[in-house]
Amino acid sequence: MSAIDACLENAEKYASGFTAGELSPIPDTRVAIVACMDARLEPAALFGLREGDAHVIRNAGGVVTEDVIRSLTISQRVLGTREIMVIHHTDCGMTKFSATELRDAIESQSGVRPRFAMKTFADLEGQVRRSVARLRESPFLPQRRAIRGFVYEVATGRLREVA
Amino acid sequence: MSAIDACLENAEKYASGFTAGELSPIPDTRVAIVACMDARLEPAALFGLREGDAHVIRNAGGVVTEDVIRSLTISQRVLGTREIMVIHHTDCGMTKFSATELRDAIESQSGVRPRFAMKTFADLEGQVRRSVARLRESPFLPQRRAIRGFVYEVATGRLREVA
Repeated sequence: MSAIDACLENAEKYASGFTAGELSPIPDTRVAIVACMDARLEPAALFGLREGDAHVIRNAGGVVTEDVIRSLTISQRVLGTREIMVIHHTDCGMTKFSATELRDAIESQSGVRPRFAMKTFADLEGQVRRSVARLRESPFLPQRRAIRGFVYEVATGRLREVA
Repeated sequence: MSAIDACLENAEKYASGFTAGELSPIPDTRVAIVACMDARLEPAALFGLREGDAHVIRNAGGVVTEDVIRSLTISQRVLGTREIMVIHHTDCGMTKFSATELRDAIESQSGVRPRFAMKTFADLEGQVRRSVARLRESPFLPQRRAIRGFVYEVATGRLREVA
């Protein structure tokens, strides 16, 4: 059985016990979370979120890309969120290689050099601050007073506010 | 108390009961999930995932953007995932407006016209198929045999495979 098939078995059970069919598309907490895709970081468990509570936007690193700005623009302007949390974490894959190392490795494996920015970073707390600063400057986000940045420590489960 | 402060109270509790400090950055299931940011869709609950199990990449719509390709490239080439699930859902905000309507609304509210593609779509199942097709064609992803696409029904909690 593939790993996806195992996921689908659980999805069947989830649907049989499902009682959240009347939820609004507008998140209850009015919070949007921007976080790394890392498997060790589980926003719902960390923050005690349930279905309907918050938007969750995730990519490699949890960095603020144009796609994150697009998603937050929709989140605030169409779906009414008002606060943003940005979460990067310790031991992140994006801090372990330089963009050039990654590009070279991908090109030598695939034969094609990626055009896209790799978005690696060396300084974890500095990257959180830059991500938050970029959001605070975006004219597309009407709600910019409550944008807060955090480092999640994968070894301890603790969240530290850094911006 | 702000909604973020309420999240932080829960994060304190989470850290005090934390026992997952030894997890690998390589996801246990070797699965990467691409899903919409929608608050009603909760991948961990739906698939029974715990910390360490799977990469989760999310944006407005769950559409395959360049940032998603970047994240999946890191996920497969650096962190060893082998299967991909793409999940869009019913009642998605991205199906309710055209890109032009969104751009016009944002420009009239902010004074700046967004340069970025809005990534709206009208045909939900077709969009899942296009997202999966785009991933299957990407030279940056070494693992392309197990890429599967789904529609999640927010009213019933059911997941339907469509690609």
